[in-house]
Amino acid sequence: MELHLVVDPGQADLVGQLCRQIRGLIRGGHLAAGERLPPTRLLAAQLGLSRKTVAEAYARLAYERLLEGRPGSGTFVARAAPPPAEPRPSLASESGADARIARWRALTLPLRHPAPQGGARYEYIGGAPEPRLFPHEAWRRCMQHGLRQDAARSRGQYGPAEGLPELREAIARHLAFARGVRAEASEVLVTNGAQQALDLLARVLVEPGCTVAVEEPGYLQARLLLQAQGARVVGVPVDAEGLIVERIPAEARLIYVTPAHQFPLGMPMSPARRRALLAHAQRHGAILVEDDYDSEFRYEGRPTDSLQGLDEQGRVAFVGSFSKTLSPSLRLGYLVAPRPLIEAVANAKHLADWHSPLPAQWALARFIAEGELRKHIGRCHQAYARRRALLLEQLAGPLAPWFEAVPIEAGFHMAALACRPLDMAALLSLARRVEVGLYPLDVFYAEGAPRQGLVLGFGAIEALDIPPSLERVREVLLQLDG
Amino acid sequence: MELHLVVDPGQADLVGQLCRQIRGLIRGGHLAAGERLPPTRLLAAQLGLSRKTVAEAYARLAYERLLEGRPGSGTFVARAAPPPAEPRPSLASESGADARIARWRALTLPLRHPAPQGGARYEYIGGAPEPRLFPHEAWRRCMQHGLRQDAARSRGQYGPAEGLPELREAIARHLAFARGVRAEASEVLVTNGAQQALDLLARVLVEPGCTVAVEEPGYLQARLLLQAQGARVVGVPVDAEGLIVERIPAEARLIYVTPAHQFPLGMPMSPARRRALLAHAQRHGAILVEDDYDSEFRYEGRPTDSLQGLDEQGRVAFVGSFSKTLSPSLRLGYLVAPRPLIEAVANAKHLADWHSPLPAQWALARFIAEGELRKHIGRCHQAYARRRALLLEQLAGPLAPWFEAVPIEAGFHMAALACRPLDMAALLSLARRVEVGLYPLDVFYAEGAPRQGLVLGFGAIEALDIPPSLERVREVLLQLDG
Repeated sequence: MELHLVVDPGQADLVGQLCRQIRGLIRGGHLAAGERLPPTRLLAAQLGLSRKTVAEAYARLAYERLLEGRPGSGTFVARAAPPPAEPRPSLASESGADARIARWRALTLPLRHPAPQGGARYEYIGGAPEPRLFPHEAWRRCMQHGLRQDAARSRGQYGPAEGLPELREAIARHLAFARGVRAEASEVLVTNGAQQALDLLARVLVEPGCTVAVEEPGYLQARLLLQAQGARVVGVPVDAEGLIVERIPAEARLIYVTPAHQFPLGMPMSPARRRALLAHAQRHGAILVEDDYDSEFRYEGRPTDSLQGLDEQGRVAFVGSFSKTLSPSLRLGYLVAPRPLIEAVANAKHLADWHSPLPAQWALARFIAEGELRKHIGRCHQAYARRRALLLEQLAGPLAPWFEAVPIEAGFHMAALACRPLDMAALLSLARRVEVGLYPLDVFYAEGAPRQGLVLGFGAIEALDIPPSLERVREVLLQLDG
Repeated sequence: MELHLVVDPGQADLVGQLCRQIRGLIRGGHLAAGERLPPTRLLAAQLGLSRKTVAEAYARLAYERLLEGRPGSGTFVARAAPPPAEPRPSLASESGADARIARWRALTLPLRHPAPQGGARYEYIGGAPEPRLFPHEAWRRCMQHGLRQDAARSRGQYGPAEGLPELREAIARHLAFARGVRAEASEVLVTNGAQQALDLLARVLVEPGCTVAVEEPGYLQARLLLQAQGARVVGVPVDAEGLIVERIPAEARLIYVTPAHQFPLGMPMSPARRRALLAHAQRHGAILVEDDYDSEFRYEGRPTDSLQGLDEQGRVAFVGSFSKTLSPSLRLGYLVAPRPLIEAVANAKHLADWHSPLPAQWALARFIAEGELRKHIGRCHQAYARRRALLLEQLAGPLAPWFEAVPIEAGFHMAALACRPLDMAALLSLARRVEVGLYPLDVFYAEGAPRQGLVLGFGAIEALDIPPSLERVREVLLQLDG
C-alpha cells in the first residue's frame, strides 16, 4: 500500500501535519477499516522524518481511536472508526456539507508544501528556481514604481479582470520574442500563476462528466483540478517524442499537454507529434491547453517554438508563469487564447478574485519593458546550463550503471530512468542520511510507473555541489547492490 | 427596458466596450430578437458617454447584423441574429465548449469596471476608499520589508496555501480586537480579497442544484458566483432589521449575509435577528457566510460585533478584506472558519492558485503588527465621519422632500430611499450633466426594487464638495418636479 503523504519539515508541528493527513485519508475512504499502515521505520525514511515523529502521530491517532496497534503485527486502521472529534462542532452535518468538506480535506495534494528548508544539504528538489539568482535590486526598483503607479492610477478602485493593459502588452511582446507565440495584448489575461490559468480554463470549459486528456506521467495538480471540476480524466501515455496522439480518446474535449518540457520527464514534443496533435484537435473539435511550464533556459539545438505559434485554427490555450523565471512566491502568470475565450475567462476571473494585485502588475510590466526579464533569463541560463552539463556528465559517467538521463532542451530539472531494478525507498532514505535530497519519478504516474526513476531538479543545487553529492549517491547505490 | 451596461471611461475603446456588452446581452438571451434598444441620447446620458459613441456602437452592431435600425422608430435587436463572426475561428465548436464559452462571455457583471476616472467631478460611487488617505509611506516601508523577508525566507519555493503563519496570526488578533471575532491563527486563511474567500467557500460547499439563500437586495457578485457553481439561489428580503429570517427556505444549506452593513442598504442586522439567524442555522444544519464587508469606521452607539463572535456552534464562515480599509488594488482578504472547513478550503485554494503572493503577505503582517492598520483606520474614520454627517444633514434638510436616509452604523456608503415617485433615469442623466455622479439602488435587486433610491458612496468625495454637489442635485430634482 502506498501512502501519499507530504510533510514539510520547514513548518512547525510535524506530528500534527502527519496526523491531519492520515485522518484525511481515513475519512476520505482512501484508507479502509482494517488496513495496515506502513511500519514507523519505513514511513519515517520515506518522509525524511524521525521515527519518533511517526510513532507519535500513530499514538495520537490511536488515542483518537482512528488507528489501533496490534502487538507483533503492526498498526491498523480501526475497525469502526468513530466520528471525528473536533475542538469545535463541525459544520452543518445534516446538509451534506460535511461530506463535501471531508472530501476536500481528504484530497491529498502532491507538493502541498514542497519547501526544502530544513531539508538535505544537497537538494535535488524540482520546481524551485535558484533564489540566489533572483534580481532583488531590479525587482525592488520596479515594485517601487508599481506602488507609485498604483497610487496614481488606481485611485482606490478595482482594476480590470483581464489585467493591466500595459502588462498584457508586455507579456504579448515577450512571448512573441521568447516563445514564438502569436498574440495581441487583448488575447492575454493576467493570472495568479499558471495554476490559476488552468483553474479558470477548467471552470469555463469543463462540465461534469466531460472527458479530458492529460499526460501520463504528468502534472498531478492539473489532473486533480480537472477532477475537482467534475471531469472524467484520462491519462494518455507519453514516449520519447511526447504525448502519443493516437491514444487520445476521441471524445476528449480538452487535452492538457506540456510540449516544451514534458512534466516530469523533460523531453520536448517532437515536431511530427505537434502537427499530429493540432490535426487531432481540429478533427475532434478539442481545445489544447499548452502548459508552457519550464520552457525558458533552452540549452541546445534550434529552439522549439510553442504549439500556439503553429496553430492556425485558434485551438490552443497557452498557459505560463513567471514562477520559474522569477519566483513562485510572486504568483504571476498568464493565459493566451483567442479573444472569445479570453472574454469568457475574464468573467470567471472576475468572480474568482476580481483581478490580480495591481502594484505587482505595474512592476512586472516595467521589469519586462526595461529588458530586465531578458537579462535575468540570460544570467539564469548560464548558471543552469553549467549545472545541467555536470549532471549529464555524472549520469553518463559514474552513475551510468544505474541511470540514464532523459534528454531535455530547456528547464531546470531532468529525469533519470533506472537501468535496472532498484529499491527506490531504500535509495531515497539512505541518500537522505548522507544529506542528499532525491525525489522519485513514480509519484507522477497516476496509473503506476512502468519504470523507476528520479526527478533531478537543479534550481536549488549549486554546480560545485553536483559532483560530490552524486558521488555520495553512487556510494549508496554500491552499498545497495552489495 | 433596463440595460445593465457598465462602460469604463478610463479605458480605451469605448465603442468596443459597449459593443462587447450588447453582443453579450443578445447572445445570452437577455435581449430578445425584436426588442427595442434605448435611444442613443438616453443611453449616452445614462452611461456618461457622448451620443456619437453610442451611435457608433449601434452602427457597428447593425453591420454585424445583430441590430437593425428602423427609420423613425428606433434601433432593435435583429429578428434572426446571425452566429457571431470572430476575427479568428472560435474554439471547439463541436464539443459543446462554444456554448460554455458563450455563456461565460454573456455573463453581465455589475461593477465589472467601476473605475470613475474621467467620471463626474463630484463622484458618489460606492466601494472605493479615499485614495488620498492611503498610507503610502508606511505601506512602502512594509513592502520593502516584505520583499526582503520573501527573499530570505521563501528561497524560490512555493508558500503555504493557507497563507503565512505570521499574517494569519496578525489577522486573528486584529479581528478579535476590531470585530469581536473568536479565532486562532489556524482558523484563518489568507485570500485574494473577500471575493476569493466566497469563491473558495462556494467551490467546497455548493453542489449543483443545492439551495442557497442570499439577501434581496444584495451583492450581485455573490449571487452570480453561487449560480456559476450550480446553486439554486433564492433571494430573501431584508427589512429595517436586516434579513427576514423566517423567509429563508428551510432547505438552504448556505446563507449569505452582510450583518455589519447590509449591502447595499447599509443598516446593521439587529441583535434579535442575529440570534434568530444563528438558531435557524443550527436547526436546519445550514452554514452562514458572514460577509463583513465595510464593517470598519463605526460611527455611533455601541459597536456591533460580528455574528461569528456570537456563534457557539461553529456554523459561521466569516469573510472580509482589506479592500475597504486599505485598497482593493492589493487584493488581500481572509476567511475565518472552523478548522475542518479551513483545511478543505486550503486544498481548494491550492488548486485555484496555490497561495497568495508572499511579499504582500509579509508586508501586511508587519503593517498590522506595527499598529499601522489601526492608526490608518482611525484617520479614515475621522474623514468619513465628517462626510457622513454632512450627507445626513443634506438628506434631512434640503433633500428631505425627495429622499430619506437609511441609518448606518459603519462603512462609507449609505442608501437614500425616494419618498415619492421619481424619473430615476432622468435624474441620473441630468445630475451627470451638472458633474454629479449618482448611482441607483435598483440594480442591486435581482427581482425588482419595491422602492427607488440612490446608493451614495462617500469614499471618493471630499467633505467640502458634499453640500454644493447636493445643491446641484436639488436643483435637478426641482427641475424634474416642475
